[in-house]
Amino acid sequence: MTIHLVDIDHVGIAVEDLESSVEHYRTMLGVEPVHRERVEDQGVDEVLFAVGSSFIQLLGAVGPDSPVGRSLATRGPGLHHVAYRVRDVAGALDDLSAHGARLVDRAPRPGSRNTLIAFVHPRSMGGVLVELVQTR
Amino acid sequence: MTIHLVDIDHVGIAVEDLESSVEHYRTMLGVEPVHRERVEDQGVDEVLFAVGSSFIQLLGAVGPDSPVGRSLATRGPGLHHVAYRVRDVAGALDDLSAHGARLVDRAPRPGSRNTLIAFVHPRSMGGVLVELVQTR
Repeated sequence: MTIHLVDIDHVGIAVEDLESSVEHYRTMLGVEPVHRERVEDQGVDEVLFAVGSSFIQLLGAVGPDSPVGRSLATRGPGLHHVAYRVRDVAGALDDLSAHGARLVDRAPRPGSRNTLIAFVHPRSMGGVLVELVQTR
Repeated sequence: MTIHLVDIDHVGIAVEDLESSVEHYRTMLGVEPVHRERVEDQGVDEVLFAVGSSFIQLLGAVGPDSPVGRSLATRGPGLHHVAYRVRDVAGALDDLSAHGARLVDRAPRPGSRNTLIAFVHPRSMGGVLVELVQTR
């Protein structure tokens, strides 16, 4: 089987202050937020802006011990991950695993917007944290 | 005027070894390169993979003194920039400038694929190097 990447689902951007960053994106880039959600198991508050068939995702850390909080502490704000839309996250994980990829998530788990998601470790993707997203 | 972001044009990823990275993307993610170009004034070799209406752009440095070469030396390989497709780069730069944004390029310049491009400084975009792309 081969993974089929349908589209770039979103670009995830870690920010220090979510509210001021949302305002900055509104005024600087003329985009309006279309979705806001707290994802408890990831420890993030996210805000999405629709751009064509993709989203810009701003990520604020719920606390310093969350993945985004640790990323902010060590690398500062900026590009955090890229998410590809796929038809079948479980199948994609099987395929990546067969090719020797190191997975953060061995099975799909619930993401925001009622999606199924999984992360692939940056060590297997040239330093890029990759998320796979399946819409339901 | 307000910028209208049409789509995510591409996600730019800095890589140490372009040829092995292209092969890695082919086998791991099942994508095929659709374009390859050396952009002399940016000192990069780029390879594009089409993903939906966007591209994954792998960037190899032509030399260590190029922008991507310096990025690899200081930050290592990984996510380098995000590019938004716009209808009018010159107008977008005027608008960003009016909002106090720090620009890398004060005027549009030729990019790959016969595009017009300009970069916005990461200090104005929460640590994200942003590129604007206008197709011709």
